[in-house]
Amino acid sequence: MQQKIRIGIVGYGNVGKGAEKAVLQNQDMELIAIFSRRALKDTESGVPAVDIVKIAEYKDKIDVMLLCGGSATDLPEQGPEIAKIFHTVDSFDTHANIPKYYQSVDEAAKSSGKLAAISVGWDPGLFSLHRLLGSSILPQGKSYTFWGKGVSQGHSDAIRHIEGVKYAIQYTNPREECMHAVRAGENPVLRSENSHWRECYVVAEKGADITTIEQQIKTMPNYFAEYETQVHFISEEEFHTNHAEMPHGGFVFRSGETSKGKKHVLEFALKLDKNPEFTAFVLATYARAVFRMAKEGKSGAVTVFDIPFGLLSPEEPAELRSKLL
Amino acid sequence: MQQKIRIGIVGYGNVGKGAEKAVLQNQDMELIAIFSRRALKDTESGVPAVDIVKIAEYKDKIDVMLLCGGSATDLPEQGPEIAKIFHTVDSFDTHANIPKYYQSVDEAAKSSGKLAAISVGWDPGLFSLHRLLGSSILPQGKSYTFWGKGVSQGHSDAIRHIEGVKYAIQYTNPREECMHAVRAGENPVLRSENSHWRECYVVAEKGADITTIEQQIKTMPNYFAEYETQVHFISEEEFHTNHAEMPHGGFVFRSGETSKGKKHVLEFALKLDKNPEFTAFVLATYARAVFRMAKEGKSGAVTVFDIPFGLLSPEEPAELRSKLL
Repeated sequence: MQQKIRIGIVGYGNVGKGAEKAVLQNQDMELIAIFSRRALKDTESGVPAVDIVKIAEYKDKIDVMLLCGGSATDLPEQGPEIAKIFHTVDSFDTHANIPKYYQSVDEAAKSSGKLAAISVGWDPGLFSLHRLLGSSILPQGKSYTFWGKGVSQGHSDAIRHIEGVKYAIQYTNPREECMHAVRAGENPVLRSENSHWRECYVVAEKGADITTIEQQIKTMPNYFAEYETQVHFISEEEFHTNHAEMPHGGFVFRSGETSKGKKHVLEFALKLDKNPEFTAFVLATYARAVFRMAKEGKSGAVTVFDIPFGLLSPEEPAELRSKLL
Repeated sequence: MQQKIRIGIVGYGNVGKGAEKAVLQNQDMELIAIFSRRALKDTESGVPAVDIVKIAEYKDKIDVMLLCGGSATDLPEQGPEIAKIFHTVDSFDTHANIPKYYQSVDEAAKSSGKLAAISVGWDPGLFSLHRLLGSSILPQGKSYTFWGKGVSQGHSDAIRHIEGVKYAIQYTNPREECMHAVRAGENPVLRSENSHWRECYVVAEKGADITTIEQQIKTMPNYFAEYETQVHFISEEEFHTNHAEMPHGGFVFRSGETSKGKKHVLEFALKLDKNPEFTAFVLATYARAVFRMAKEGKSGAVTVFDIPFGLLSPEEPAELRSKLL
């Protein structure tokens, strides 16, 4: 039996809790500790909950640290700091800031000889891989990404800031007719606004004017004004019963011609009951690859683009060739 | 401007002709020559057609050779032979013989310091990548591969051997209801026979007994007896008008749970107007990766499992991170 990959988790929100489950499902991994800034009494699995200020004490006890904090404030600070001590995997997902984040983590990880996989998850992550694959195979073609049906945290928050709103959740939906056109190889010209629609479920405060709330949502620039938006007012009970989960998913397409009239369509689709939990499972899978690449002497920052799929599986290369190729 | 990757093509059947188109669509590649055992008068693009016996003369003129011969007799011989002289990419697709083929190519390529990517295409190839990805991310789950709608050469040939059959083509079709069950996360137990059905278009010889032909097809063991099979007799004219293309495609699914009741489904789908042409475009894409990995000193045999996606794109890593991640 090979020695197990010793994993630590930083952050114990939705992604961190998913990561805990993921490590337990992977027989070649061992969960050592969960680090948090908050005082955690317990963890679901019973592994020690440790104050993040003590993280350096685990230098020789943990191989790969899964960074499960948020991209707005946690990761820009934690990513480079923790890569000075451990190999890391994170899901930094602010697309526009990836180059800057990459650079800061790369410098930190190179200085310590550690390996850090950034922006792992499904978008960025698995979706990015498919945008790259499709455009490489079919140079003369068009790429499409659709999101949903799924909860957008940003849009849900925007509704919650409206006066008179007690609870709110927003689902982004792809337009079926647009996906059909893409699947048929029609290469339509699409923008996010005409290929998605928005569905809002709102619990209003007692006595609030729901006509005004609906109007404020539908005219909110950047968030809703440009989209077809449906607003449903529901009871608090229905909200907690039917809208407590975080489903998400989406579709990446590449459609192109190899010669006149010869069309080819690649489609990658995800349907996720619990978005942060799935993201965490992707992080755990990439921890295996990071561990192996680091063993071969690789250091610095990498992304999903740099990691061959063969390193993601617990199986041996010869086994993979005979069973899965 | 970087120097272009100099490509040669071995074999000028359907895949070889597709490879010619692929190299022309990729701006960073240059097609040097097409090698064949048959005396070729011309090539579509006007590049030199060369007798395969002269292939070694191109040792310093070609970087990567795309091997476009068949898996039954061409590749087992050509794969190892040509890997002694050039970096290669091939689409060896006899799944059961991959381990043996890998070994013979690996030995040849290592002895010459060349790099050979074997079994590249869509199945084996892109489908294999998704079987690996899905099972790695969701260890507690089930994988499914569906093929079609598409032409099966082997099944078409089997029909053609029946007395009284002039022309025949067979399309493999996935069962929609099975795919729906998989998409819904129901994890059904499926075998190829109950998740696909077969559709045959047959041109009978004048005076042939079509009832007997239909009976012979439907009861043919291993090919049709185990499947729901439809047989359509059509005119020679209709055959040549409507069944001259080689469409194919299929679906790879992974469906699994991350925790109780939390289901996640990954789906990868291909819809191909012209199967061998698409396969050739995948070969060309992987030639770019082979060229780059060889430059870094890698030699021997590799598969799609060993090649990071980042090497497939003509774009620089920093560009990929900022544009596609």
